[in-house]
Amino acid sequence: MSLDADLRARAAKVIPGGMYGHLNAALHGDTYPQFFVRGEGARQWDADGREYVDLMCSWGPMIVGHRNPRVEEAAARLQARGDCLNGPGPIMVELAELLVDLIPAADWAMFSKNGTDATTQALMVARAATGRTKVLIAHGAYHGADPWCTPGLSGVTPNQRADTAEFTYNDLQDAERAAAEAGDDVAAILVTPFKHDSFEDQALAEADFARGVRALADRLGAALVIDEVRAGFRLDLRGTWEPFGVRPDLSAWSKAIGNGHAIAAVTGGDALKNAAQTLYSTGSFWFSSAAMGAAKATIEILRESDGPALIERAGARLRTGLYEQAKSHGFTINQTGPVQIPWLSFDGDATLERGVFWAAACLAEGVYVHPWHNWFLSTAHTDAEIDRALEGTDAAFAATARRFSGV
Amino acid sequence: MSLDADLRARAAKVIPGGMYGHLNAALHGDTYPQFFVRGEGARQWDADGREYVDLMCSWGPMIVGHRNPRVEEAAARLQARGDCLNGPGPIMVELAELLVDLIPAADWAMFSKNGTDATTQALMVARAATGRTKVLIAHGAYHGADPWCTPGLSGVTPNQRADTAEFTYNDLQDAERAAAEAGDDVAAILVTPFKHDSFEDQALAEADFARGVRALADRLGAALVIDEVRAGFRLDLRGTWEPFGVRPDLSAWSKAIGNGHAIAAVTGGDALKNAAQTLYSTGSFWFSSAAMGAAKATIEILRESDGPALIERAGARLRTGLYEQAKSHGFTINQTGPVQIPWLSFDGDATLERGVFWAAACLAEGVYVHPWHNWFLSTAHTDAEIDRALEGTDAAFAATARRFSGV
Repeated sequence: MSLDADLRARAAKVIPGGMYGHLNAALHGDTYPQFFVRGEGARQWDADGREYVDLMCSWGPMIVGHRNPRVEEAAARLQARGDCLNGPGPIMVELAELLVDLIPAADWAMFSKNGTDATTQALMVARAATGRTKVLIAHGAYHGADPWCTPGLSGVTPNQRADTAEFTYNDLQDAERAAAEAGDDVAAILVTPFKHDSFEDQALAEADFARGVRALADRLGAALVIDEVRAGFRLDLRGTWEPFGVRPDLSAWSKAIGNGHAIAAVTGGDALKNAAQTLYSTGSFWFSSAAMGAAKATIEILRESDGPALIERAGARLRTGLYEQAKSHGFTINQTGPVQIPWLSFDGDATLERGVFWAAACLAEGVYVHPWHNWFLSTAHTDAEIDRALEGTDAAFAATARRFSGV
Repeated sequence: MSLDADLRARAAKVIPGGMYGHLNAALHGDTYPQFFVRGEGARQWDADGREYVDLMCSWGPMIVGHRNPRVEEAAARLQARGDCLNGPGPIMVELAELLVDLIPAADWAMFSKNGTDATTQALMVARAATGRTKVLIAHGAYHGADPWCTPGLSGVTPNQRADTAEFTYNDLQDAERAAAEAGDDVAAILVTPFKHDSFEDQALAEADFARGVRALADRLGAALVIDEVRAGFRLDLRGTWEPFGVRPDLSAWSKAIGNGHAIAAVTGGDALKNAAQTLYSTGSFWFSSAAMGAAKATIEILRESDGPALIERAGARLRTGLYEQAKSHGFTINQTGPVQIPWLSFDGDATLERGVFWAAACLAEGVYVHPWHNWFLSTAHTDAEIDRALEGTDAAFAATARRFSGV
């Protein structure tokens, strides 16, 4: 029996469903390994020692490569002195200063542990500032797994969902409709910087939509909150909507901020600073130093090396390679989202049958991609790593062509 | 200017209120340092290099001493291989197995990052299992800082508080009243294992109350959830109500579980395992290995050394010493709660004036205690450390006697 199978059998006894959440391999495909033991740069190894070029980056957190020496050294240095103490360390101030310096819309920062902590806290700030209740969110958008936002409704009460109202992403008219229905009770408009819902093609934000929700929030006297948890720092270190000239009142950050170390942040503008300090929002590990040291090192590396440009280069190389391969194997594919956070679907594959087969074939070829969730690239994805990934994806297209020939 | 003052001035510019949450030193007293840089065993050092015997244990997380070599080695070994990967490591199964082996009421475990994650998730399980909405909680009890439970109401909506109903701790009749008012819609009774509300004397759970809420939950068909986040592993490794013969359906754990490494857990019985697996509850860092390695090492150390007995010995020595000192200085004090998680108030000091003065005097003597929140002891609190602390507390009683003489 493989080690993975052995671990799954043991897990089934002591973990509900054998695993839960987004890392439950049962959701990804029959051949996906459940357990992993090692990461290095752009590679990961599963419990049975199989090596993969990793195009998921642990679902986003890894942005400067697994075991990045500078990040690990920064975290270890603080860990060795004391991580979780009776107060935060100087690193908390340094990290907040760095974010304020980096992000034009940020005058202050608050730190926590989960992306959901940050989205939840941002809405608390917006509600404290406005004295209002409702938050407008895009239908299907993922903002975390707390009862107010989890995509699964098991264990969730109607009251927990009663303070949000939905609109269609990239549809300003629908956002206006939702705002009108909420009357004068809109505390915030919460948006992801692009449409990255699971199980479907991604969509970049249209400039008119981005500028339109900014203007709508202003007109309502509500906060514009950008949920950067998934996209943050991969497209633009200043904030993903900065190229549109759109600055949010509040942003939620996590995942890539600490290259795998557990940290999240809310940043905001001076107009909301007084409201933010009225919250009682806290956690036992929110002030710990090591993850903040990791975050500072991660952001410094990204800034010094122009990380988003490096990741864009990797993504463009991957996208071009996949396009040519698909064409040569007779497939029409849709590559959507920014190249740094890509996804691929087969044209006309509404059931994802081909996509799931192709992803599993990539896995068999040592390339870890996801069949229904967007992928993530990092600065560790050098040309050589992308080319190695493309060897595997080409074989996967060939296998997919054999499987679906005559379909 | 002191380093602490310099850091506060910088923090005021980039952090709302200069600091937030439970580690905001402004809440503790004028002379409390805000920033800390080092921990070692039972000692901590602030940013200006002042050394303290630490009787707060970072508000609970530190249970086998700062920089415990075995814990740090276990975490570092996993961190060096890969912490945040595309799936959990084998350590997740090992840790779940350890908890199931240790805790009689536990047949399974789920992991997360914050104590609030664990209490929130436990209620989701209870609601999923029962299809009901309401949760009965004790008035004034702290269960975390999410909108549904945070003690501060800024940024919180009425809907977010609508699914809880309150009763008085240790008052079974009042719990029955709250249950009757909630009709047939009680999903859970959520209780801390003793009354550890801030700003007031603590109270141990009465056996009749503990057994009574167990029977009440059974009669209602609701889950009994024990919030062990603050008390867990300091009094009884099997669960704090195990000596009463009371086993919960679900328990929430965090703080001490990983000796400062960010981890939380829900454990539950087989009857709720199917319900637990229906949740979509997850986080980017919930499956990371290093903190799980820290938790496994922490729990193994506590089990092998009978940690609760060691901590009880430290607590008894501290309590006896404080009693004698107070008496010798002419004070009547109330020492409440279990000795492992103690608190001290001055008799008749409703405004906490004497208590706040005394705590600040302890701080000046190199002993870190809290004026209005319970303290925590650890296995690193040897007789010598307690005796060193008692030197400081004696001087603090003397100073308090001088200050309040003739009052």
